[in-house]
Amino acid sequence: MSPINGATRIYVIIGDPIDHVRSPNVYNALITAAGRNAVLVPWHAKPAGFGAVMKGLQTTSNVDGIIVTFPYKQEALAFADVVRERAAQVGNTNALRRDATGGWIADMFDGVGLVRAVQGAGKDVAGTRAWVIGAGGAGSAIAFALAAAGAASLYVTDLDTDKAARVTQSVAQHYPATAARSSEPDLSTISLLINATTVGLKDDDGLPVEIHSLAPDITVIDIVPRAGGTRLLELARTCGCLAVAGSAMVEGQAQAVLDFFWNG
Amino acid sequence: MSPINGATRIYVIIGDPIDHVRSPNVYNALITAAGRNAVLVPWHAKPAGFGAVMKGLQTTSNVDGIIVTFPYKQEALAFADVVRERAAQVGNTNALRRDATGGWIADMFDGVGLVRAVQGAGKDVAGTRAWVIGAGGAGSAIAFALAAAGAASLYVTDLDTDKAARVTQSVAQHYPATAARSSEPDLSTISLLINATTVGLKDDDGLPVEIHSLAPDITVIDIVPRAGGTRLLELARTCGCLAVAGSAMVEGQAQAVLDFFWNG
Repeated sequence: MSPINGATRIYVIIGDPIDHVRSPNVYNALITAAGRNAVLVPWHAKPAGFGAVMKGLQTTSNVDGIIVTFPYKQEALAFADVVRERAAQVGNTNALRRDATGGWIADMFDGVGLVRAVQGAGKDVAGTRAWVIGAGGAGSAIAFALAAAGAASLYVTDLDTDKAARVTQSVAQHYPATAARSSEPDLSTISLLINATTVGLKDDDGLPVEIHSLAPDITVIDIVPRAGGTRLLELARTCGCLAVAGSAMVEGQAQAVLDFFWNG
Repeated sequence: MSPINGATRIYVIIGDPIDHVRSPNVYNALITAAGRNAVLVPWHAKPAGFGAVMKGLQTTSNVDGIIVTFPYKQEALAFADVVRERAAQVGNTNALRRDATGGWIADMFDGVGLVRAVQGAGKDVAGTRAWVIGAGGAGSAIAFALAAAGAASLYVTDLDTDKAARVTQSVAQHYPATAARSSEPDLSTISLLINATTVGLKDDDGLPVEIHSLAPDITVIDIVPRAGGTRLLELARTCGCLAVAGSAMVEGQAQAVLDFFWNG
């Protein structure tokens, strides 16, 4: 990465824990490639100190952007002067930046990263028929982003069926052109399958839903950041599907966040 | 420099302005050479926000050290739970670190850096007869550090003669073995001449005191960080003296601060 000097601008990724995050590697490579004199550093705040740490960061003149990860995506909204629509829709933010007047703008790029990953794999999101497994923070952001990008139909499921219903109802309100349902789809009708649960992270994890085979024209994305891949991706490859690992989403998200930091 | 990842420990250098500081380059080279997973980043706090910024840094779990530069060396003392003797003597701190219990220890290495630079140039500080020009923060720290390292005699002068007298009186109290005076010495009796004023920084600056020649056995150090060197260093070289630039002090100070961060 590029040398740091006195004029280097600072971005942080704040979370608890923080030592496992891959973002510094991903972002700093993109920053260096863009020729910017900036750096992303990990920032570890314990819950009791989160407010003081955020205030300190926002008062520091050369800190231009704050990336937010677990468990602060909701709490961080309180530190924004302006909350962009995507963040307001899901009630979470993963990135805040300073604006020209010194205030802070919060936005949400978790779903955008996934849309970019699909597009980066050469697939259209407009018109897609997607099944999002998991209606938590990630699943919700992905559902909204797919609808915003023109998905034709959207199934969102979760072990907590009420939670899934709340997400699809909210998506339907904001994006009436997308047919959003909280039921399991007929597998033969979908073109995009996304695991937005944490199932697959552990070595002995199985599949996030009971599936035995997939048609080869389905694109499968697993957001679980497991180095060796997951059972779901394994099944997808066996069935001849395009299988996209979570790292593609992290990269797509990083590009979108840096675009937000640099161009608004 | 080494890649930053989620487990990288953070040091900052806080000041206003900050974009001219050379410390990130110097420290990060030493950190990389030591094989540590850590990084120093510049941290810009305006005076009105200094307290909030310091509180934020001290509340951040992976920030292990804070280097303090202009104009906060005095104000930063208020953020220490323990003030080490060197910092208490001069009423300034240039480095704070977290201790094992989560408290913060303040110390002062501005003078130590100069002593290391003299030693690095192959000269003894014990027994030296030094003239320190300038009794401000830097001059004061240097006077104390030379006395602590066993200087035989110490002259400290300043346009503000009272200020010089206060420094030498305080040095004399703490280090009675060093003969400390606030008068100009007979040049033929000194072995070490230090410019601790800012004279020499500007292109049209002359010498910090009126000197026409120097005996070749005098070691001359100018702490002014001017890339092309200063008039004083020029005169020293012309006279056959050993001439040491301010950068040697910065490097010596960085080694001492990192030793404080890593070994206490």
